[in-house]
Amino acid sequence: MKYRKVSAIIRRDALEKVERRLQDAGVRGISVTRVKGYGEYADFYARDWMVAYARIEIFTTQEKAEGIAQVIMDSAHVGLSGDGIIAVLPVERLYRIRTKSEATEENV
Amino acid sequence: MKYRKVSAIIRRDALEKVERRLQDAGVRGISVTRVKGYGEYADFYARDWMVAYARIEIFTTQEKAEGIAQVIMDSAHVGLSGDGIIAVLPVERLYRIRTKSEATEENV
Amino acid sequence: MKYRKVSAIIRRDALEKVERRLQDAGVRGISVTRVKGYGEYADFYARDWMVAYARIEIFTTQEKAEGIAQVIMDSAHVGLSGDGIIAVLPVERLYRIRTKSEATEENV
Repeated sequence: MKYRKVSAIIRRDALEKVERRLQDAGVRGISVTRVKGYGEYADFYARDWMVAYARIEIFTTQEKAEGIAQVIMDSAHVGLSGDGIIAVLPVERLYRIRTKSEATEENV
Repeated sequence: MKYRKVSAIIRRDALEKVERRLQDAGVRGISVTRVKGYGEYADFYARDWMVAYARIEIFTTQEKAEGIAQVIMDSAHVGLSGDGIIAVLPVERLYRIRTKSEATEENV
Repeated sequence: MKYRKVSAIIRRDALEKVERRLQDAGVRGISVTRVKGYGEYADFYARDWMVAYARIEIFTTQEKAEGIAQVIMDSAHVGLSGDGIIAVLPVERLYRIRTKSEATEENV
């Protein structure tokens, strides 16, 4: 499988910086969802322990996935347990709706 | 792995049509999330470049995944760069909470 | 691949119980998103057939994934067709932003 999904759960207040860095790094498409979380990526001391996070999702090639994870780690890192997590998942196929065809490695 | 997740990021205004076509095609379960995005699936000319999208998620069998992607491509396609993207991801296991057991290919 | 993503779509009203049981079971991080759904995990009789669900996402090890799915099944189960679905997906890499390094099996 030559494509990957990079899925990151980051602090809501780090989102703007992360987005900017990803654009600077040439990442051509991201999607962002609001999520709530707890645990390793939340504040255990909060009375209401569900904390506001943002989830970023990027579809990319196998070659670029690790570099993208690195950019997110560098720009979202504060050094606290609520900093978040990044996962890289295998993607079997990737299609562009605009062209109604599979993505090519050149346009991802 | 015999199951797949079809994950599509489409224009918000195409959602209703896509849902209808998926139901017509016999897709028995979808979930929809609001996301924001930019890049290949957004309008670069927008001053506020984060555009409203919908993410559709469907769990299905390996055999049906490509057909479902095709239905989404056909019904969400406008021909613009913000049309969106569809990914097919491998799924190791799939359980139904109603039956407390693994899904069978007959009921997916 | 030694890591997994457990992704569950459950009734919104089962969320609190499921979260509590997951914490009791030692699950150290979850994220929750609001989704809408229909089909096997919705009420077909509803006039407005898009029903409110919650999606839970947990990153974990291969060894723990099935146990976590079981906890969710047990605590979200009502016995109706709208009870929801749980998928286990392979994860190639998992990074912690706090440590800027790959997760170890000990801290997942």
